[in-house]
Amino acid sequence: MTWHKALFEPRSVAVVGSCSPGKMGHVLITQLLDGGFDDVVAVNPKAQGIRDIPAVRSLSELKTGRLPIDLAIIASPAATVASVLEDAGKAGVKAAVIITAGFSESGNEQEEDKLLAVAQKYGIRLVGPNCAGIVNTKHSLFPTLETRPPSGDVAFISQSGALGGAVLSWAEEQGVGLSKFVSYGNAVDLSEIDLLNYLRDDDETRVVALYIETVSDGRRFMEAASSLSACKPLVVIKSGRSASGGRATQSHTGSMAGSDAVYEAALQQCGAIRVAGIEEMFDLCRGFVHLPPMRGKRIAIVTNSGGPGVLAADAGDREGLDIAPPSGMLRQRLASQLPDFYALTNPFDLTVQGTQDEYRDTLIETLTEYDAAIAINVNTPYLDVAPLARGVVAASKATGKPIVASFVAGQPAAAALPILAEGCVPNYVTGERCARVLALMARREQRAAALRSPAAQPTFMHDLSAKPVPWSGSPTEPEVMDWLEEVGIPVIAHRFVRTADEAIRAADRFDEPVAMKIVSPQVVHKTELGGVALNLRTPDEIRAAFSRMKGLVAAEAFDGVLIAPMVEHPVEAIVGLTQDRQFGPVIAVGLGGIYTEIFKDLILHVAPVSVGEAQQMIECLHGVEILRGARGSVLRDLFCLAQLVSDVSRLPFRFSGIDELDLNPVFLFERGCAAGDARLIPIQGARQQRSK
Amino acid sequence: MTWHKALFEPRSVAVVGSCSPGKMGHVLITQLLDGGFDDVVAVNPKAQGIRDIPAVRSLSELKTGRLPIDLAIIASPAATVASVLEDAGKAGVKAAVIITAGFSESGNEQEEDKLLAVAQKYGIRLVGPNCAGIVNTKHSLFPTLETRPPSGDVAFISQSGALGGAVLSWAEEQGVGLSKFVSYGNAVDLSEIDLLNYLRDDDETRVVALYIETVSDGRRFMEAASSLSACKPLVVIKSGRSASGGRATQSHTGSMAGSDAVYEAALQQCGAIRVAGIEEMFDLCRGFVHLPPMRGKRIAIVTNSGGPGVLAADAGDREGLDIAPPSGMLRQRLASQLPDFYALTNPFDLTVQGTQDEYRDTLIETLTEYDAAIAINVNTPYLDVAPLARGVVAASKATGKPIVASFVAGQPAAAALPILAEGCVPNYVTGERCARVLALMARREQRAAALRSPAAQPTFMHDLSAKPVPWSGSPTEPEVMDWLEEVGIPVIAHRFVRTADEAIRAADRFDEPVAMKIVSPQVVHKTELGGVALNLRTPDEIRAAFSRMKGLVAAEAFDGVLIAPMVEHPVEAIVGLTQDRQFGPVIAVGLGGIYTEIFKDLILHVAPVSVGEAQQMIECLHGVEILRGARGSVLRDLFCLAQLVSDVSRLPFRFSGIDELDLNPVFLFERGCAAGDARLIPIQGARQQRSK
Repeated sequence: MTWHKALFEPRSVAVVGSCSPGKMGHVLITQLLDGGFDDVVAVNPKAQGIRDIPAVRSLSELKTGRLPIDLAIIASPAATVASVLEDAGKAGVKAAVIITAGFSESGNEQEEDKLLAVAQKYGIRLVGPNCAGIVNTKHSLFPTLETRPPSGDVAFISQSGALGGAVLSWAEEQGVGLSKFVSYGNAVDLSEIDLLNYLRDDDETRVVALYIETVSDGRRFMEAASSLSACKPLVVIKSGRSASGGRATQSHTGSMAGSDAVYEAALQQCGAIRVAGIEEMFDLCRGFVHLPPMRGKRIAIVTNSGGPGVLAADAGDREGLDIAPPSGMLRQRLASQLPDFYALTNPFDLTVQGTQDEYRDTLIETLTEYDAAIAINVNTPYLDVAPLARGVVAASKATGKPIVASFVAGQPAAAALPILAEGCVPNYVTGERCARVLALMARREQRAAALRSPAAQPTFMHDLSAKPVPWSGSPTEPEVMDWLEEVGIPVIAHRFVRTADEAIRAADRFDEPVAMKIVSPQVVHKTELGGVALNLRTPDEIRAAFSRMKGLVAAEAFDGVLIAPMVEHPVEAIVGLTQDRQFGPVIAVGLGGIYTEIFKDLILHVAPVSVGEAQQMIECLHGVEILRGARGSVLRDLFCLAQLVSDVSRLPFRFSGIDELDLNPVFLFERGCAAGDARLIPIQGARQQRSK
Repeated sequence: MTWHKALFEPRSVAVVGSCSPGKMGHVLITQLLDGGFDDVVAVNPKAQGIRDIPAVRSLSELKTGRLPIDLAIIASPAATVASVLEDAGKAGVKAAVIITAGFSESGNEQEEDKLLAVAQKYGIRLVGPNCAGIVNTKHSLFPTLETRPPSGDVAFISQSGALGGAVLSWAEEQGVGLSKFVSYGNAVDLSEIDLLNYLRDDDETRVVALYIETVSDGRRFMEAASSLSACKPLVVIKSGRSASGGRATQSHTGSMAGSDAVYEAALQQCGAIRVAGIEEMFDLCRGFVHLPPMRGKRIAIVTNSGGPGVLAADAGDREGLDIAPPSGMLRQRLASQLPDFYALTNPFDLTVQGTQDEYRDTLIETLTEYDAAIAINVNTPYLDVAPLARGVVAASKATGKPIVASFVAGQPAAAALPILAEGCVPNYVTGERCARVLALMARREQRAAALRSPAAQPTFMHDLSAKPVPWSGSPTEPEVMDWLEEVGIPVIAHRFVRTADEAIRAADRFDEPVAMKIVSPQVVHKTELGGVALNLRTPDEIRAAFSRMKGLVAAEAFDGVLIAPMVEHPVEAIVGLTQDRQFGPVIAVGLGGIYTEIFKDLILHVAPVSVGEAQQMIECLHGVEILRGARGSVLRDLFCLAQLVSDVSRLPFRFSGIDELDLNPVFLFERGCAAGDARLIPIQGARQQRSK
């Protein structure tokens, strides 16, 4: 028997914990019985049962011959749970849900480890501890402290028990039915990753919703999430957006790439749709459950009232939908069919005169050239709303394309709601929410298509068994530049020199005027300290600059200077690598110069990325036109930048020990590109510096 | 008798229009009677009444001696309305609400003008035509086709009848009571401006909500709105955000400053709070009605559940609230009072154990150092929610500071809702919506304070009786530069010359290398066409550049070239003026160069602006640090830029005929600033060019 069979479709269930009224065992058993699941055994020191279910003092007392207990729901005190699991193992229990709190979440890791050890000894799979239980509506199984939700197609997995409870309580009112619910708590054994992998293949689940605060293993999470996303929609609430990054970073890109931005990138890469909260989650789940997929972003808005139509159009525009005007042909067809048609443009305004047939026909006609429609009806006490709703439902059935409705408001619209619900047309209280749902659904379709294309199949490499970088401490800039060149990353021509005479000779080898940069372990912010001199043309200028730089630091801290030719009309990008605590190596590309920081124009991806993915990242930058150099005289080589981004993103998988790497700037040329400055912080060095 | 007395507190009302069941007259009279207003006369050709109200065939038949008719509600066919008004005038009616449609909105301006003429003849003030009626709950007056709303403190004014109807239908469910409602339709006489002016002084209205698609007179609207905002909150839904700008503009700033952006700026300048739709409007109105003003942005979140607390904190952060951690002193006080307190940080997590007293005391303690609080409670079937709600209400009463709640969800939370409502603690379905409401309330308080300060009192100048600009056609760049200098706007040193020799002599007067720009009516995009040469040092270079430029256009289209010294390490802003159809002159300031367009970093204000306001505009730019030059060696003079922005913003009030003016770039120096390039399109010229 698989763990999920034992967990979600147990033949019988033992509830371990006090059964006195008000105690958790009592709540759990009542929920199970009231939910329609009768094969329950109560386990508690008093051998107290509820109604006519059997009760024993411990699982070891269970008589052989009775129906095997596949699942134990454990709510006994924390100190007893390990021994309860022992008994459960001996009694042949296959899975356990541990409601009891007081483990790692309150510092008691030891006791939690013990649970896992016992479970592994007997091959029991665990949900929890410190969780709110599970639900399988299709099996009438409700071992949870929370409200029993209606049955439906959405599975909901929650790291937070309370938030899970809120979702269950709200599901009925929101019109969202659940297939399964799991509050996985501390996830000592089964985590969100196991559950995602299971739900991918669960035929009773068409949409998966997930609430997370953290993930246990970023890369395995991404594998599970993208594998699921390729099959069915995955809606994610990730909290902690505002939490300060969590780790101190020293690099440019690192400090801009807070932990939440990495989650955002990771979720996007694996095709999940992130929403801001529960309300949006419900809105979106209803869309996914009831509507066919969005094939594009062209949306028609059919309304009986101008204002709300325009507000929906505004929202659609904001959300990136295309509220395009109709073609001349469509306009003609509408004009011929709908004699008193008011406004033959998008939004299509049927006015307060709009009839059932006009709603239906306008929707059917417009959907010949739009991908989806929003049907708005603002009702008044003197309009009969039911037929209008029927017109919308008829169009939905006739076209097979996504139609959402906003029939409002209050009592005058009430008669429409059951008709729309019955007809699988999700109704939202505002056109703005309609637009948001359609926009997110379109986004999902786009990402799912990308995940399904064999060329774009993402690989979330785990293997870090690579050779170490060639330094134990922090390398100097010339060391990093030389190493990058060696491993195939283009860098600009440069010479590291230790004396003024060497500097003059080095400058002589370049045709252009040169830049000089100090090399010293003491100087991190070179520009601010006067450690950079530009446009040096003559030996005198070079000599003067050299002696100025030498004076900036103590003699023993002065390694020398780096000489490089000046780049004319520079167009600059920035490329960086950081190590994220959850997701490992993360690659970033952005607009170079001071604009990067001020406009936060930086795109992250969990590394590695293919050249194609890197191209997409670059295209997503607001300032991509600046990088392309379209406003200057010479177009820049963005393909080569994508190649560099992809190559840099693979470095952490070829070489171990890179904590952060900043290429800032990367100069873009008509052909090719090259890092103009490089800073690498090895993992060792970073730790040392941080512990200071 | 004032018009508003006649409109909102009439002694008796005539309803003009067919009274057969289903007809508008019937609906209107039924609404009036059911709403509790009995002094109604029915006026229709059949002299048909309803219940026992008197009926006449026309207003001219009214017997003298009965209660005077102050208000006529007119729903008779469009062609009859003018003569109905004649009769009404003779009968001494003071105000009329014209429900009837079929006037200017469907092209029949003539008939609408007639209404106004008749009304003016008799001194009748009009609401409508083409509207959904009015409401005064405090006078039990409901002459509207829409749902009768509950009574309360919010006045709602709507340009759209249908949207107004939706608001009325929804008000009960949303827990928002209305004082007055006006659907003003085509606004042939009374407009949103008159209504705002009236509601400012209406003691029965504490909050005003407004739905507009356009305004009739931008500057008078701003005067009315800011005068109202200084007294009470004004919440505005303005639709048409996405509508393409409406007018073709030729200048840089003009094309970025679409009409909606001007509305946004204007609303902000007059202290109104713009919301995206009806739902947000209701949320915010509930906050304004029930809560004391927000004195700052520091928000405490007190919750019984981590996840929803963090989601609220995320939202607060997004909305610009300060979810700061508590001081050490507060932490100590909490620790001493609340023995088993879980997380002594913000969000303050009371866990599922949190009691009534703990909610109350934590809120009271935290509000000693926070400006407002969000109380979150995620309920489960086994928690008794009523006492917890009582704890929150007690804290609200004890502190007198704004507390909003999110007690969720569904049935388990239901018992809390009446307690919170009774205790004036607005409850929202998510913590995100709580945060949004508090953020908007804080924004309102900030703006209202600014409006109240006598120094910052805005002046929306109307007087355009100024002397005309000195050209009839489009001036050349040197003409504009010279004129700007004359009127006190700093421009960089420059010489306009017509021959290569003159150019060489001109360049000689400057110490630096020079830039050369073609002057030709044919060349608008100089850079793209090769009409700009930079860094010219020698006579040969100048001669070559001159002859190249001369070759760019036909001899008769070549006026000459402009010579100006090169600016070293330029920091560039852009300053522009445009004429908005609704609001007149609009001033814009932004980051210069290609970044302006790509990052849309531009702030608009309706002109004129004081130096102080201009400083605030500059501070609002994302790239203000770039302008300040903080990353370079020399700090730039932003005060001088503010002075220039203010001076430019006054030009349209000193000189008539400026359609657009672009100063791009404006160079910023250590002391001072100066326009480096200027383009002015006179109103005449713009019209000619556009009509081509």
